[in-house]
Amino acid sequence: MRTSIATVSLSGSLTEKLTAAARAGFDGVEIFENDLLASPLTPQEIRARCADLGLGIDLYQPMRDIEAVPAAEFARNLRRARHKFELMDRLGADTVLVCSSVSPLAVDDDALAAEQLSELADLAQDFGVRVAYEALAWGRHVSTYDHAWHIVETADHPALGTCLDSFHILSRGSDPKPIEDIPGEKIFFLQLADAPLLGMDVLQWSRHHRCFPGQGGFDVAGLVKHVLRTGYDGPLSLEVFNDVFRQADAGLTAVDARRSLLILQEEAGIEALPAPAAPTGVAFAELVTHDAEPVVALLAGLGFARTARHRGKPVELWEQGEARILVNTGPAALPHARLRPRGGTPADGTALAAIGLESPDPAAAARRAEALLAPVLPRRRAAEDAPLDAVAAPDGTELFLCATDRPELPNWRADFEDVPPAAATTAAATAAAATAAIAATLGACRVDHVALTQPWHHFDEAVLFHRGVLGLDAQESVDVADPYGLLRSRAVTNADGSVRFPLTVGAAPGDDTAHARHIALATDDVIAAARRLTEAGGRLLPIPANYYDDLAARFEFADGELETYRDLGILYDRDAHGVFRHCYTHTVGRVFFELVQRDGGYQGYGAGNAPVRLAAQHAVR
Amino acid sequence: MRTSIATVSLSGSLTEKLTAAARAGFDGVEIFENDLLASPLTPQEIRARCADLGLGIDLYQPMRDIEAVPAAEFARNLRRARHKFELMDRLGADTVLVCSSVSPLAVDDDALAAEQLSELADLAQDFGVRVAYEALAWGRHVSTYDHAWHIVETADHPALGTCLDSFHILSRGSDPKPIEDIPGEKIFFLQLADAPLLGMDVLQWSRHHRCFPGQGGFDVAGLVKHVLRTGYDGPLSLEVFNDVFRQADAGLTAVDARRSLLILQEEAGIEALPAPAAPTGVAFAELVTHDAEPVVALLAGLGFARTARHRGKPVELWEQGEARILVNTGPAALPHARLRPRGGTPADGTALAAIGLESPDPAAAARRAEALLAPVLPRRRAAEDAPLDAVAAPDGTELFLCATDRPELPNWRADFEDVPPAAATTAAATAAAATAAIAATLGACRVDHVALTQPWHHFDEAVLFHRGVLGLDAQESVDVADPYGLLRSRAVTNADGSVRFPLTVGAAPGDDTAHARHIALATDDVIAAARRLTEAGGRLLPIPANYYDDLAARFEFADGELETYRDLGILYDRDAHGVFRHCYTHTVGRVFFELVQRDGGYQGYGAGNAPVRLAAQHAVR
Repeated sequence: MRTSIATVSLSGSLTEKLTAAARAGFDGVEIFENDLLASPLTPQEIRARCADLGLGIDLYQPMRDIEAVPAAEFARNLRRARHKFELMDRLGADTVLVCSSVSPLAVDDDALAAEQLSELADLAQDFGVRVAYEALAWGRHVSTYDHAWHIVETADHPALGTCLDSFHILSRGSDPKPIEDIPGEKIFFLQLADAPLLGMDVLQWSRHHRCFPGQGGFDVAGLVKHVLRTGYDGPLSLEVFNDVFRQADAGLTAVDARRSLLILQEEAGIEALPAPAAPTGVAFAELVTHDAEPVVALLAGLGFARTARHRGKPVELWEQGEARILVNTGPAALPHARLRPRGGTPADGTALAAIGLESPDPAAAARRAEALLAPVLPRRRAAEDAPLDAVAAPDGTELFLCATDRPELPNWRADFEDVPPAAATTAAATAAAATAAIAATLGACRVDHVALTQPWHHFDEAVLFHRGVLGLDAQESVDVADPYGLLRSRAVTNADGSVRFPLTVGAAPGDDTAHARHIALATDDVIAAARRLTEAGGRLLPIPANYYDDLAARFEFADGELETYRDLGILYDRDAHGVFRHCYTHTVGRVFFELVQRDGGYQGYGAGNAPVRLAAQHAVR
Repeated sequence: MRTSIATVSLSGSLTEKLTAAARAGFDGVEIFENDLLASPLTPQEIRARCADLGLGIDLYQPMRDIEAVPAAEFARNLRRARHKFELMDRLGADTVLVCSSVSPLAVDDDALAAEQLSELADLAQDFGVRVAYEALAWGRHVSTYDHAWHIVETADHPALGTCLDSFHILSRGSDPKPIEDIPGEKIFFLQLADAPLLGMDVLQWSRHHRCFPGQGGFDVAGLVKHVLRTGYDGPLSLEVFNDVFRQADAGLTAVDARRSLLILQEEAGIEALPAPAAPTGVAFAELVTHDAEPVVALLAGLGFARTARHRGKPVELWEQGEARILVNTGPAALPHARLRPRGGTPADGTALAAIGLESPDPAAAARRAEALLAPVLPRRRAAEDAPLDAVAAPDGTELFLCATDRPELPNWRADFEDVPPAAATTAAATAAAATAAIAATLGACRVDHVALTQPWHHFDEAVLFHRGVLGLDAQESVDVADPYGLLRSRAVTNADGSVRFPLTVGAAPGDDTAHARHIALATDDVIAAARRLTEAGGRLLPIPANYYDDLAARFEFADGELETYRDLGILYDRDAHGVFRHCYTHTVGRVFFELVQRDGGYQGYGAGNAPVRLAAQHAVR
């Protein structure tokens, strides 16, 4: 189906909005009147610009406070409408949105509304324009879609139809099923927006908190299915008022928007996309740095051993159990830095720049990502490398789709040649190897989760990307109190929990880089691991004694248990399913590590402990 | 009365919070448990720190989900409480806040609640602790203050009283009058917070949008009066959860908080402050710059003439009618730059740094400002200057309290010596003088308003400062769509409109400096003024033709009227009271000028036109 987006959904000048919509692949736009008023382009120039960009002008909007008013007022409204129809003629737009009135002059008289809308439609017809009448959720007398449709049906005018808007319908809790009773040819337009489920005045909710389908709590796809059953064949058009998108880069928002619409079309059964192939594990995490010594010392202290090095580039593989960390000191690091690398750059010290995901079908996963507008990265970084499928996440993190040790598929591991443990290349690595001998291992070590800080303006996009493109499930969003602002965190995970990415966003746009990313390593004995690490001279993040006094108040522990946690700096959480114990290393550049032990069915991340951890990190900074 | 603030109201570590509270002059604090848990200081060290800072610990909070639960759960709760009472003993806190339960285990049984709270109070008494029981607005079974009081009354225990919280009471719309029926000695604590009147889920409203009294829509002073009639003599304590304050500088927030409490005490009749002496006009606006030529050329083009220069410093006075602009090129500019000068600094090109306010009693106005914690600036910048009273606004703008041409009072004008119009000092001024001869005057020119962009974290503070300290009235807040984000604007004015400051805040913290300040000059013939300016070669901000097409649709004009506006770039607004016409100059550094003509009783600022103006300014940037 034809896809469209309202210019109000994007930031910038009208020209910037149009360009962004076209580049993201939309077929058309709704021209929001205020964007036209503020543009130095004439309507004819806007028309030409859209034509050049391959964009149709699917709607001109909105026309307000038209109907069910005294005759003198309606005459003024018709005069105003005539001006707009003339404008639409120059613009080349043939459908206008009329919102149900919020005017204090409007009366509760459906017959009058129908009569005046019919008169408006007469005038519109003279200009070749169709009028799409929509119920605003906060309309003065008309606030539900069935009411608006009743008026349209009463007017029974060929140039008058209804416009359906998922926000206005679902925000009021209206049942979308009866939409199917409207003849498809009388639905002149369909506007789509999602929204988080907030208990809030609907006008404020609408003006500030709409989001793209799949980013909120409404069943937008379900609504679309009802609309399609009417035979509606007009555009699917996004109209989103959102305080954050207003500030964000229009080009990135437009891609996010279109991706949302593609996923929606898939859910509604309109569009066939390559099926998701959800990742089944973390193959590796790649750190980039100009100075490997601090992070290599930390890895060694954690019990990692350098097992291999890249055949052609300065990249080392550090392994422990199933956890693999690449340390990249090469100039080729971050080839896609233009994609806003949120993990940081080598200039920040050490940064987390790439993740290898075990995929049941790397090629299929890459095809889906490409179909959903993820930038596809070159399959190989160098001629001799294995041809790995890779895409960039919205935050610029490179995601390599891996098939580790599956002989029939390209294997990233084949780019590496083993090194004997003693072949340390730097003084730090030598020291680290000695430390490692003491630290031994973390036990059955693997990557439990990778916490990825996200750019402020693109948090909802990141969640949708990981859900829709990678096939992960999004968990509930939680607020976390940092001493200097509230953070928001939402984890995306695969079904068995072997891939977990808590996505975190700072308190404000300027806060993008305030928080480091981290790699959490799962162990089956966090106490032993923490003890070995500290005995080997490693440092764990110091946790205040007051925290342990509170644990003592909240839980009962076995003799000596709490003292052990206190001595080592281990944090503790318990829920209905199980127990979580975790501790943190110091931060190197923009990266730190967490050691975690999950017992029972604990599925969380110790969010209740995060404020203590964050305060402790600020304290040692 | 004793004043206190909850540590959760301020950002940073516990140490930073305590220091900020003490510096702002609070008598005590409420220790928010999470702040203590995250602090590396032991309870004894916190106690000593507070003692050193002269702060009492007036409350420890909160203790949750205690009452009306099955016996086994209550036993666990008592165990937890005992830990906290031991902690409070070390901390030296003698009152604990217990919030009404939100636990799914809690039952709707007031007798059980009273019995268990009584048992808790028995235990508390052993530690010398008093229990203050508060109804959360979203409590599971107890959500109103009278219900909580009924339970406390039933329990009838000397160590059990109630805590009143203005947010929990007023957010539910409870009538505060019956508070007077509670014996004052049974009100153990009084927490105060205001909030904007939002239609929103009360928990979300409470956790994110509270503000200091006088910054929202509640009658907090009225509630305090009811409480005082009971004989309550405990602290007035601020407890504010606010997403913005969490990010802001703790020291500045604490000053804002204490100022709010002083104004509240004045309103409640507890505290006598020097009476406000609202300003009666704008004496001058002062621009600072390292390069005067661009702004001097602009002033001359607007019809200003250089009439005087400062006797001791490189400051020129430019005048037209009653409008006076100082142009300061001296190194002494912005002596109080440490106060976050939001107008910008000379490094930005030209910036608006100071405003002279005509005051009926400059000394009294300064005394009030000082009593309300405004930084008082040195009365004279140099030995030979007139001793002017001056204070800094929260945004760093210097406010000089002037008595222009009142012989009995120090007169800023006396620091200036007249210069003949021909005595131009720079090439630009020469050219400007020539231009001025053409431009002539704006007519009966005076400063209509000065638009002051504000730092993002301190917008509510700025409004309260102008209202409470200067005695201006705050108008409604309006959202204004900039192409790159929503701005918020709220005007503060004096009664006759001769002093008007629209305060504007950007879309996000990083946006502080995105928008220039501006000086609006009132004229009685904006068309003639605009025409003279353009005929003299001056430039006005170009306004898109589409805007005028929209005006034609919305309003009927006399023949040729609209064409005149279109030709000149004049914007138009009309409301029930009158008509507003205005146009804009180009921007110099961080400052531009607006020419306005108000007819009839129009009191606004053309907010509906602001998006067009902002887009036009972005377009010419």
